[in-house]
Amino acid sequence: MKAWENNIRKVTPYTPGEQPQKAGIIKLNTNENPYPPSPRLAQLLKEMNSKDLRLYPNPAASSLVDALAAYHGLNADQVFVGVGSDDVLALAFLTFFHSSKPILFPDITYSFYDVWADLFQIPYETPALQEDFSILPEDYYRENGGVIFPNPNAPTGIAMGLNAIRNILDHNQDVVVIVDEAYVDFGAESALALIDQYENLLVVRTFSKSRSLAGLRIGYAMGNPLLIKYLSDVKFSFNSYTMNQPSLYLGSRAIEDEAYFQETLRKIVNTREWAKRELRELGFEFTDSKANFIFVRHPSHPAKELFQALRQAGIYVRHFDRERISDYLRITIGSQEEMETLIRFLKNNLSS
Amino acid sequence: MKAWENNIRKVTPYTPGEQPQKAGIIKLNTNENPYPPSPRLAQLLKEMNSKDLRLYPNPAASSLVDALAAYHGLNADQVFVGVGSDDVLALAFLTFFHSSKPILFPDITYSFYDVWADLFQIPYETPALQEDFSILPEDYYRENGGVIFPNPNAPTGIAMGLNAIRNILDHNQDVVVIVDEAYVDFGAESALALIDQYENLLVVRTFSKSRSLAGLRIGYAMGNPLLIKYLSDVKFSFNSYTMNQPSLYLGSRAIEDEAYFQETLRKIVNTREWAKRELRELGFEFTDSKANFIFVRHPSHPAKELFQALRQAGIYVRHFDRERISDYLRITIGSQEEMETLIRFLKNNLSS
Repeated sequence: MKAWENNIRKVTPYTPGEQPQKAGIIKLNTNENPYPPSPRLAQLLKEMNSKDLRLYPNPAASSLVDALAAYHGLNADQVFVGVGSDDVLALAFLTFFHSSKPILFPDITYSFYDVWADLFQIPYETPALQEDFSILPEDYYRENGGVIFPNPNAPTGIAMGLNAIRNILDHNQDVVVIVDEAYVDFGAESALALIDQYENLLVVRTFSKSRSLAGLRIGYAMGNPLLIKYLSDVKFSFNSYTMNQPSLYLGSRAIEDEAYFQETLRKIVNTREWAKRELRELGFEFTDSKANFIFVRHPSHPAKELFQALRQAGIYVRHFDRERISDYLRITIGSQEEMETLIRFLKNNLSS
Repeated sequence: MKAWENNIRKVTPYTPGEQPQKAGIIKLNTNENPYPPSPRLAQLLKEMNSKDLRLYPNPAASSLVDALAAYHGLNADQVFVGVGSDDVLALAFLTFFHSSKPILFPDITYSFYDVWADLFQIPYETPALQEDFSILPEDYYRENGGVIFPNPNAPTGIAMGLNAIRNILDHNQDVVVIVDEAYVDFGAESALALIDQYENLLVVRTFSKSRSLAGLRIGYAMGNPLLIKYLSDVKFSFNSYTMNQPSLYLGSRAIEDEAYFQETLRKIVNTREWAKRELRELGFEFTDSKANFIFVRHPSHPAKELFQALRQAGIYVRHFDRERISDYLRITIGSQEEMETLIRFLKNNLSS
């Protein structure tokens, strides 16, 4: 190793799901929405003026912040936006988990949490999920440097009720508690209702799943103005202009088409429940997911084999080679047609 | 202060220049390009398909990385892209300046450097520029945790020759040396020619100035593959998908129109040299800027007064209320017409 390498921060990065560029595959591996964003965006995109791109965007991202605040019935100073919820979460780890005490998150959860903790040298402990993969709130009733969990949890899809979240908050008044609601629109209760009561609660959302805009990179956080101010200060110490003009322009208008949004949510939830019935008939076991994916295992077919077989058939799902969950596949809910193709393939494959 | 505030990282953020939304102003305060990006982008924007936005972008940003590598005659593994050069630099500070020894940068330079150092708790020392605001290479010949400087320097605009940079590199073989070339296209020599010789050299560029695309947020770094790998690992530990689809798509095509790029550069450089002559006649003193701005003072008119008077006339320039430079204004080179308006205003104002 060269001398100059001594000073370098060495990390094991998060591994994102594959983004194959091939046409014709069925992509059920990164929890994208099978339906395109509102057709109104096509027109808005056409109206964009490339000449405006020479100027810096508004650093406060006001158009997007204001639109989100109005949508959720909040004030602008309760909303923070970033380049996807990963950007928001990375900055939140950097801002709020600045303690020598360990932060807490489940042993099985979004696999970026430990990557951020390692990057910023934040100590952490990971209470084990119960046997049924549910979170036990009592595990979070001890001294810590902060708490974070997704609701619904990933990759299990299991949702926690508001009472359980309230209990966790009541036992964690001295640290920041982050509820990562990337998948909340697909059927869980939002903790947004609690931000007025709990000034140490940050709720994080994304445009990448329910809003069909993974390609724009928009995430946001909601919380009390002081929490948002601390987060903004760190953001403005990292990069002043994070949201580019296309994402500000399209993002702020994308939330206008509520009818279309509700319609695609309804379709995905219906397909998810249909897929659960079909998978059960095929002998699969799974948690009761409230997200846009199902976390499944088959008692007689190893996940790794299924993963490979599906892949060869052009159906991409996600497999995590990690303790406790290496028997499972996470299958994103695609369109009804895509899911029918999946089920058909599994029927043929499992019986052969 | 509430208990939960104890764990929070508290910082003094960088203050970006104003981005007034008013029409009709002359904006010479944030070093944007007065000329729009290549007219080809208008057509490309029209051809974008909003349906594609539902998918995550390619996390390796390959289209943009490949285009930049080809443009500079490098391999793809020598190029790293980010959300503006601020994103690239923030990640580079986090990756490369992970030492207990102080990093070195000039006392008068891009005012984000000390903000990043404070954010990541990196110790730093700031050798003073010479009386004429030039960098003395010998100041960087001592033990340190890393070196960074812009070339041309900001806000002075003074460029360092390749020999001086080579000397700094020769005396700093055990740390990473970053040359921030945000303004290099306007007339300085690039250190890019040295990356094959010095594996600890990182050269950083941006699309925001010479390439007229501040609104897209694209910056990049070039260096040897090992350096780029370390930087990528940290980036993938922070946010997998930073570059959104519009910026990948438009950014990778924006560098194709070399003729247009050279033409706008030529116009800006001509206007800069014209403005220098006019300002000299008006009694201004300034450094010999090789950037797209001029750093000026007037012996008998305080900078703050001029700043206010210009602002009232709808002409925005930048004033830094900092030691050694509070007498100066940084004036971005606008279009010839804008600069003529500026000079006309100054003529009237200084004589009245």
